[in-house]
Amino acid sequence: MVGGGPGAFIGAVHRLVAEMDREFRLVAGAFSSDPAKSAQTGRELGLDPARVYGSWEEMAAKEAALPEGERIHAVSIVTPNHVHAAPAIEFLNRGFHVICDKPLTTDSKTADAIAAAVKKSGKVFALTHNYTGYPMIREMREIVRGGGIGKLRKVYAEYLQGWLATPLEQTGQKQAGWRTDPARSGPGGSLGDIGTHAFQLAEHVTGLKTARVYGKITSFVAGRAVDDDAMALLEYEGGANGVLCCSQVCVGRENGLRLRVFGETGGVAWDQEHPNDLTVWSADGAPQLRRTGNGYLSAAARSLGRVPPGHPEGYLEAFANIYRAFARRIRGEADGMDDPFPTIEDGLRGVRFIEAVIASAKASDWRPIT
Amino acid sequence: MVGGGPGAFIGAVHRLVAEMDREFRLVAGAFSSDPAKSAQTGRELGLDPARVYGSWEEMAAKEAALPEGERIHAVSIVTPNHVHAAPAIEFLNRGFHVICDKPLTTDSKTADAIAAAVKKSGKVFALTHNYTGYPMIREMREIVRGGGIGKLRKVYAEYLQGWLATPLEQTGQKQAGWRTDPARSGPGGSLGDIGTHAFQLAEHVTGLKTARVYGKITSFVAGRAVDDDAMALLEYEGGANGVLCCSQVCVGRENGLRLRVFGETGGVAWDQEHPNDLTVWSADGAPQLRRTGNGYLSAAARSLGRVPPGHPEGYLEAFANIYRAFARRIRGEADGMDDPFPTIEDGLRGVRFIEAVIASAKASDWRPIT
Amino acid sequence: MVGGGPGAFIGAVHRLVAEMDREFRLVAGAFSSDPAKSAQTGRELGLDPARVYGSWEEMAAKEAALPEGERIHAVSIVTPNHVHAAPAIEFLNRGFHVICDKPLTTDSKTADAIAAAVKKSGKVFALTHNYTGYPMIREMREIVRGGGIGKLRKVYAEYLQGWLATPLEQTGQKQAGWRTDPARSGPGGSLGDIGTHAFQLAEHVTGLKTARVYGKITSFVAGRAVDDDAMALLEYEGGANGVLCCSQVCVGRENGLRLRVFGETGGVAWDQEHPNDLTVWSADGAPQLRRTGNGYLSAAARSLGRVPPGHPEGYLEAFANIYRAFARRIRGEADGMDDPFPTIEDGLRGVRFIEAVIASAKASDWRPIT
Amino acid sequence: MVGGGPGAFIGAVHRLVAEMDREFRLVAGAFSSDPAKSAQTGRELGLDPARVYGSWEEMAAKEAALPEGERIHAVSIVTPNHVHAAPAIEFLNRGFHVICDKPLTTDSKTADAIAAAVKKSGKVFALTHNYTGYPMIREMREIVRGGGIGKLRKVYAEYLQGWLATPLEQTGQKQAGWRTDPARSGPGGSLGDIGTHAFQLAEHVTGLKTARVYGKITSFVAGRAVDDDAMALLEYEGGANGVLCCSQVCVGRENGLRLRVFGETGGVAWDQEHPNDLTVWSADGAPQLRRTGNGYLSAAARSLGRVPPGHPEGYLEAFANIYRAFARRIRGEADGMDDPFPTIEDGLRGVRFIEAVIASAKASDWRPIT
Repeated sequence: MVGGGPGAFIGAVHRLVAEMDREFRLVAGAFSSDPAKSAQTGRELGLDPARVYGSWEEMAAKEAALPEGERIHAVSIVTPNHVHAAPAIEFLNRGFHVICDKPLTTDSKTADAIAAAVKKSGKVFALTHNYTGYPMIREMREIVRGGGIGKLRKVYAEYLQGWLATPLEQTGQKQAGWRTDPARSGPGGSLGDIGTHAFQLAEHVTGLKTARVYGKITSFVAGRAVDDDAMALLEYEGGANGVLCCSQVCVGRENGLRLRVFGETGGVAWDQEHPNDLTVWSADGAPQLRRTGNGYLSAAARSLGRVPPGHPEGYLEAFANIYRAFARRIRGEADGMDDPFPTIEDGLRGVRFIEAVIASAKASDWRPIT
Repeated sequence: MVGGGPGAFIGAVHRLVAEMDREFRLVAGAFSSDPAKSAQTGRELGLDPARVYGSWEEMAAKEAALPEGERIHAVSIVTPNHVHAAPAIEFLNRGFHVICDKPLTTDSKTADAIAAAVKKSGKVFALTHNYTGYPMIREMREIVRGGGIGKLRKVYAEYLQGWLATPLEQTGQKQAGWRTDPARSGPGGSLGDIGTHAFQLAEHVTGLKTARVYGKITSFVAGRAVDDDAMALLEYEGGANGVLCCSQVCVGRENGLRLRVFGETGGVAWDQEHPNDLTVWSADGAPQLRRTGNGYLSAAARSLGRVPPGHPEGYLEAFANIYRAFARRIRGEADGMDDPFPTIEDGLRGVRFIEAVIASAKASDWRPIT
Repeated sequence: MVGGGPGAFIGAVHRLVAEMDREFRLVAGAFSSDPAKSAQTGRELGLDPARVYGSWEEMAAKEAALPEGERIHAVSIVTPNHVHAAPAIEFLNRGFHVICDKPLTTDSKTADAIAAAVKKSGKVFALTHNYTGYPMIREMREIVRGGGIGKLRKVYAEYLQGWLATPLEQTGQKQAGWRTDPARSGPGGSLGDIGTHAFQLAEHVTGLKTARVYGKITSFVAGRAVDDDAMALLEYEGGANGVLCCSQVCVGRENGLRLRVFGETGGVAWDQEHPNDLTVWSADGAPQLRRTGNGYLSAAARSLGRVPPGHPEGYLEAFANIYRAFARRIRGEADGMDDPFPTIEDGLRGVRFIEAVIASAKASDWRPIT
Repeated sequence: MVGGGPGAFIGAVHRLVAEMDREFRLVAGAFSSDPAKSAQTGRELGLDPARVYGSWEEMAAKEAALPEGERIHAVSIVTPNHVHAAPAIEFLNRGFHVICDKPLTTDSKTADAIAAAVKKSGKVFALTHNYTGYPMIREMREIVRGGGIGKLRKVYAEYLQGWLATPLEQTGQKQAGWRTDPARSGPGGSLGDIGTHAFQLAEHVTGLKTARVYGKITSFVAGRAVDDDAMALLEYEGGANGVLCCSQVCVGRENGLRLRVFGETGGVAWDQEHPNDLTVWSADGAPQLRRTGNGYLSAAARSLGRVPPGHPEGYLEAFANIYRAFARRIRGEADGMDDPFPTIEDGLRGVRFIEAVIASAKASDWRPIT
């Protein structure tokens, strides 16, 4: 693991979910750019001190130098956004598989560089748009892509949080600090942190490509250097359209990622905070409330569950599904998912989405997503 | 009553709710432009045939000619949008109070003419944006306008239906027919029919004025002459912003009018399909689920209920609250609502909203709402 | 109307719903046993003072003496439970149709006397177990009686309120006063006031007859002379069983009437506080969420709605459905409901249910409901 | 681990959750009474074949013979109910900590024997009534035991499933097989499998002791040798009472464990299928909807979460909380929970609950729980 030192949230999540299905075992890490902090985290995790490194450069070099069978198989990159590209490229170049947090990176140019490294290396690269790991997102995708709601017309995507409604970054809170610092997060604030999740999920579920966007971004909190709120009208290739809203100033909202899609003959709706429920509308019949784990679901959705119906699966299980699929792909095994996890392509589109919304808002005009 | 003949939906609703609180009694009407149909409806309603008229012009003239105490006190106009202005002006001019369905009319020019007639007449004019009659909308307004969620930042308004997902107007269905005919509905389809409700409700609850809009409108159903779907980014005076979505092609959605408002210290959310529930978020405490009829509500919200908590009140009761307030205003009585019902001003803004969104969509640029 | 004077809750509800569909018009009443209060209510309602009576005996005699066509058609009895029987019998005997609040009366003996009067008179007698008027209760009944969930196994009925969690009757509150006074309410407190609703609804929906009960009753509030909480195990003829809970001391619960029924191949669930939703489970498919007003409902359920899907109908509309069916039965018209309203038979069973639960609790043994 | 071989459900769950927080690592097991199957499971799990045993007797003897530091620290017993007592006693006697699935065992006599072994050994014994591990159950307990709803009056506990609505055991399904075989499950069917969960949870949350029960048990499926449905009226010490319903024939219900508790000044409600929500009612204010992970929760409830608010935690995380607390207790560390997990005492009461309900149903009389 690269990143995930003291005070990190997402690093701890990655560690837990990577090991949930016994697919991976954490054996080495460069947990912080501060060697002392890296060592501290390594100790807390009970790792062999010889494999707790003071920098990711050192880790890449020394792990690559270990005999085959003793070195790591894959690296998990969970640093702030501006420290994704360099280690990803380095580990890929040294022949390691990479699983990287989102958004891919801070700008298109470095994104393209990562993509080139992925291609050249032939290694597996996964991006942890973890919400795609939910069974009911998978069911939604099966329905929508399988023609279950007809030709698509409307996409409503939103991701509303409230935790940045005050200038939390001025209190020294680490999570808020890097997420509101453009040098570390990139040009997008809420756009990069959560907007990219909503954007990716909409394309993942529908199979539609977003042709162009009209964006409006706002920094509601005084002194904040990045957006803490954004809205974008969306036009998809083929005629569907929609809207995407993301915000981190909606007081009281926890992690409100919702997606609704409507086609000519039906609709589907999902809410991340009650992730085991999926509402399905049809033109003539009563709405259905499909639930995780049941035999009436698609095989793909069933394959992502671990426990029987009515035993709620949550955020961590969905996230672990990404790691499980990553492991299977490394082994070359089949998986219940045709695209077992978000890839470099999702990452490229996410970075371009951020750039397009910001450019659109600046120009007060539509911008394409290439 | 003017309008509300055979096959009408909203006319029957108006009749029921006008009488619910024994404030009004239907005694006369011009129910259709076809005298035979008007007479048929009058017979079905058990009215005195002498007061069932073949046209609204005849009705206005003959009722005005009756001795005081025998003539109607007020007229309810429930015709398609293009037949609001002329009868409204005529009845106002003849000294009758008017309660009129929404949107006010089809264009700004005739809207201004009605406004002038209202002013000149000194009579009471109410517009049936009926959703303002819900107790929990009133509670929401009390909270928001009373500073309960702080300075406002975000407004999310949506009104999604699915009943026009197919070319229903081509089957002879009367409701679909006039609503999709620009000659009768005006230039807005979904915008006029339901978008104006969402727009009005957002301003009603927040007290904010919409400064400008950026709109996108779509006619998804082939051959449809008006929009059946619209989205608009909104900027409010004072710095808040938001988004409004309306659609009549969201298959499976019934009457999905929802409003969420967030300020610096809290948020509120309401869904018309479960209208007795109001979610209230604050920065520090647990979310509240306020419910109609309880003692912890504001006096204004309590005044709009008829039955104890847990006895659901619905669409008809909310609508009847508009008529009850209209009656009280005619009598000059105090009412629990400071603005007892939507007025000509709401009507003017609604027409300008329709025009601004369409103009914006055409120009691909923001347009003010004056 | 008999009863419904100053401070009454249910009387005002009856007046509103009786007139909602223009089937009835209130023209006469004996609103209180105190003639001055009766006159006051009559004035407030704008009635002809000549037809506002000082007692129900006077009203029955004088109305009967009016020429046919000028006298009332039917009487609505909305007094406390101990004043149901005498006026009901008197009005029936004088040839008037009767619609009476529940429970029918305070004991089996007077219940039988009313039943005899109904039979002898040949007049229509309706009991306002108003919850049967909800469209989704009707849908539930159609499903269950139509075999849609197979042979029945389980019934879970509950009716939980919290408004009597404190000794409200000691504060002079009128509603609490008579409901907790066995001389006026009969031997059942919560059992009579709300338990009979749950009992009746369960039999109404399932078509099952309750064979015997095992009851436990409690008076949680010190000094209360009747139960404020009861539970009963139920055995139905044919092998199904279940449980019924009613309580008026569940703090925070408003009007929590819920019914769930399970059979060999499916289940259904309904909650009065969100009455437009009905959950339907089947053995193999996804749960359905059926909603009022939709074309996929049974004709019977559709016939009980007034507005399109998504326009919530509530307690008053459901109650009005009872009056509308009562009117149609008086006219001998067909109605969408095979049993258009609860009848004397429901009333008899309700009284026997109260008596059986109390006797069972006293004896700590099962008691039949004959 | 003892048990958890091919086809087992709960064994796989125990393995996953035991390792979730890196507190335990599975190193040895006797996974089946069939040595070949045990070996197969060991291979699938990648264990050292030397520590995969053909019987739990062998495992206990050989692990105890290993040098300290090389032997297991604790054993997880996940066999059918009739194979809990013997291995538990044996491993306790040999000085191992034990964590055992519920119900404790099949009868009071063997339950007492386990209790004696626990006492004599001085080792930590945990019973996996896993639902106590949910953060919102912990919050509920803090509220109720902290006096937040006043003196307790009512408890409504239910646990409804539908998976045994047909004779599934006749198809060879392993889970259904042993659960409906009294030789393996003990005398209780649904009572033991899920009724004990509801019973334990109610006492856990309230701190009340159930004084006596009146039960009714049913085997709805023809030929089934144990109950598949039960109901019990409950009387608690101190005056509260309630009802407990469990069923495995409620078609469509997945894992419907719900608990509601009401006191003199408030109430609380929780539903396992949406476990991150807790409804809290008070006498005067609006209901609260408390949610996992928030700062407004009690410290105890917060300590049981792993991720921020809005990131759903589910069944596996709650279960893992039991294992984490078990590990901390073994190490003698403080934990956020005063009772970090259900103990032998919960187990004893569960067995007595099963026996009391069955005896009560047989005698048609109340039975104490000693």
